[in-house]
Amino acid sequence: PTDLAESLVWEPAKSGAFAASGEGLTADYADAADAADELRSLRDEFLFPPTEEGAKIRTGDRPSVYLCGNSLGLQPRAVREELSSELDKWARYGVEGHFKSDLPWVTVDETPVESMARVVGAKPVEVAVMNSLTVNLHLMMVPFYRPTATRHKIIIEKHAFPSDWQAVASQIRHHGFDPATSLVELGPREGEETLRTEDILSALEREGPSTALVMLSGVQYYTGQLFDIPAITAAARAQGCKVGWDLAHAAGNAPLYLNAWGPDFACWCTYKYLNSGPGSIGGCFVHERHAEDASLNRMAGWWGHRKTDRFAMASAFVPSPGAFGFQLSNPPVLCVAALRASLRLFDKATMPALRRKSLAVTAYLRALVAARLPSVKVLTPDEPSSRGAQLSLEFGSDVPLRRVYEALQRESVIVDIREPSAMRVAPAPLYNGFRDCWDFVDTLAAVLEEVKGRAAE
Amino acid sequence: PTDLAESLVWEPAKSGAFAASGEGLTADYADAADAADELRSLRDEFLFPPTEEGAKIRTGDRPSVYLCGNSLGLQPRAVREELSSELDKWARYGVEGHFKSDLPWVTVDETPVESMARVVGAKPVEVAVMNSLTVNLHLMMVPFYRPTATRHKIIIEKHAFPSDWQAVASQIRHHGFDPATSLVELGPREGEETLRTEDILSALEREGPSTALVMLSGVQYYTGQLFDIPAITAAARAQGCKVGWDLAHAAGNAPLYLNAWGPDFACWCTYKYLNSGPGSIGGCFVHERHAEDASLNRMAGWWGHRKTDRFAMASAFVPSPGAFGFQLSNPPVLCVAALRASLRLFDKATMPALRRKSLAVTAYLRALVAARLPSVKVLTPDEPSSRGAQLSLEFGSDVPLRRVYEALQRESVIVDIREPSAMRVAPAPLYNGFRDCWDFVDTLAAVLEEVKGRAAE
Ligand SMILES: Cc1ncc(COP(=O)(O)O)c(C=O)c1O
Ligand SMILES: Cc1ncc(COP(=O)(O)O)c(C=O)c1O
Repeated sequence: PTDLAESLVWEPAKSGAFAASGEGLTADYADAADAADELRSLRDEFLFPPTEEGAKIRTGDRPSVYLCGNSLGLQPRAVREELSSELDKWARYGVEGHFKSDLPWVTVDETPVESMARVVGAKPVEVAVMNSLTVNLHLMMVPFYRPTATRHKIIIEKHAFPSDWQAVASQIRHHGFDPATSLVELGPREGEETLRTEDILSALEREGPSTALVMLSGVQYYTGQLFDIPAITAAARAQGCKVGWDLAHAAGNAPLYLNAWGPDFACWCTYKYLNSGPGSIGGCFVHERHAEDASLNRMAGWWGHRKTDRFAMASAFVPSPGAFGFQLSNPPVLCVAALRASLRLFDKATMPALRRKSLAVTAYLRALVAARLPSVKVLTPDEPSSRGAQLSLEFGSDVPLRRVYEALQRESVIVDIREPSAMRVAPAPLYNGFRDCWDFVDTLAAVLEEVKGRAAE
Repeated sequence: PTDLAESLVWEPAKSGAFAASGEGLTADYADAADAADELRSLRDEFLFPPTEEGAKIRTGDRPSVYLCGNSLGLQPRAVREELSSELDKWARYGVEGHFKSDLPWVTVDETPVESMARVVGAKPVEVAVMNSLTVNLHLMMVPFYRPTATRHKIIIEKHAFPSDWQAVASQIRHHGFDPATSLVELGPREGEETLRTEDILSALEREGPSTALVMLSGVQYYTGQLFDIPAITAAARAQGCKVGWDLAHAAGNAPLYLNAWGPDFACWCTYKYLNSGPGSIGGCFVHERHAEDASLNRMAGWWGHRKTDRFAMASAFVPSPGAFGFQLSNPPVLCVAALRASLRLFDKATMPALRRKSLAVTAYLRALVAARLPSVKVLTPDEPSSRGAQLSLEFGSDVPLRRVYEALQRESVIVDIREPSAMRVAPAPLYNGFRDCWDFVDTLAAVLEEVKGRAAE
């Protein structure tokens, strides 16, 4: 698709400049860049944590800095209203809320689908909003991981998020195979931090014929690396493997064109870049080539049954076309409502515009880190096509990471740290900007001085 | 357990009397009985739908009648406040809400467990609140339905809720078996409406040796029959079968003693008698004899990993003891919060007291139906030990059920109808009383006259 190429283009005019010289590395520049940002007004649609008492560095009237949308997105202001109107419906109609009002619950699962599909580059028939991430990975593996004696392996990352690793290992065991021989783990080369596409592709050459499923993450949770999803998907399919993606850190962050790229399935959560609240509902993609394949044996339930006679209480399962046919239970209305409030903002912003901004803001963050924190290593690839919003910072072993993190909290700068030694910093383009990055780096520099000073005492 | 026997005791002094004579069949009697009800004040904790315009029969200032807690429980007033405080936490802390506040999200899944365990007669280690009902049935079948060539069958009800039927059929297929030969369906005898325990027990004698799993519902959704869970569980286990129960219509309704009765697992939803809101989170029981069995291969995920190193990002799965070890994903905070608000009311009321009231109220409903609607047949067994709150009414084929239902709606009397021909009426003892039953029957009698009159025109 043509807008794919466009959205991956790096725009040096907007953001490359400051990397070369010291130009732009001031708070004033950051403020000016934010003022020029067309998406800036969306920031006002979110609730930022208030500043905490007890700051030593960022004193005076400073807003908090939230760079943690990779973990839990901020609350869109509209969520409270959206939930309130569902509570009103429940209070007013009781069970009749399933059929009454402008947004009857019986079709509530349809309400976020078009917007959700736009975010991941899918057709609406390919997308359902249901359950949660790890649950959906399992539900997708039921039809798409069907190991045989000769083709039984699953390829994942060596440093996959533990839940994914545990999920695939349990699936392998479920089918009577052994992870020791059926789980193929891809890691970076010795001395490198991230995977090379060429290494993934050659592993697919080597392992492909005995591999049933390739299941990687779109954006690596620890390093922030964005994988080459189209190339890997194509190579895996050429080997006859099924392909699924965990898009927890990619959905609402990286440009995605799932329909064009053609994986069999993808799953994601909506509480990170998609701002639907803690533990809220998951998203799921099943490629349209499977949409009418009723023979695909899935774990069945009434909510996946075709709509025409879902309530007729006839028993034989006839799936709805597409991703809807993989639903099991009637959906949690409150979670769907919260997601809906957030997705309206994505519709307003559009993914290409968010990506354009994100590339610039994160490049700025990287330039600031390089200029002001020379001892800090960035694990995330520099190539725009290999990253999303997040940068993962690694500190020397002499830096007490948890103390740094707590000192940042004290200054109302919220990021997260991940074992063993990464600090993850993600300017979410819906609500973050250049000044957030400047404030973060400026505060971190002072905190590192402070911690070093204390260590030297 | 001794209080089991007690809670199943029928108390004629309180409710049997009016069945014999016409005594008690007046609105005044119903009001007096409600006034004497010790649990009456709990009614004020719920939001009843306001009366709609357009009533022809129940004119004047009459409250609505809601007898549909078997389908969707009414909203506890405290839900809004409970949700609001989670939204405040999200707004104030962002991702730090996982660790900050009095109720940090990282342990939010623990908060409803003790109350939930009391409702189903389980130990806390046996209960988790997670996912949704059909999803949980599948997740439980992964370890507890392991068919072999000689023991591959699943026994369910012939008229099981469709989702359950579809779920077990897909599990059978998933393992390469055929529902035509591996699914055993138990139905009532010719001309009877409900199953006889003796027939279930003799089916277990006959089919037991080739049966891997017995999975019935505690209270039948259509007829309202409460099965003899302890006797069936014991007989199935004596045959070497695994036993699971769908308690959708039993949890918060019938007396349950799951720990003592000993099934392998049970699943339920919390949006019916447990009032947690549409599509909200499910509940799950795994008997304590499996609590430490890490070899039980389940679909694994990080939220089921033992808590001590859940976030350490080591990959090998070591389950938490008990039902918690079957969790996959971090829980939806809003759903858990709503459930918590409702379960506080169960703690206040206690299940034995609710059951005592429920037996009396539903007996009164039955007596009213018998006296005033002689042409209406009650499908639900009369024996207190064989029913919960719900009565299922069946009308002659000359009665246009949907029109009756709509006329009741017009009068602000909310019940539900189920294909092919049942009207389900469930006084939920937490918020319904004698007068609700009187109003329902009185209105239905008038509606039936009206409908008959129109048909005769
Ligand atoms: C007996 C029974 N089983 C299963 C279900 C399906 O529930 P869910 O949609 O929550 O999976 C229901 C829903 O009403 C039910 O009554
Ligand atoms: C990459 C990845 N996969 C899986 C998960 C697990 O998500 P859930 O608890 O929603 O199943 C996470 C959670 O952060 C994640 O980042």
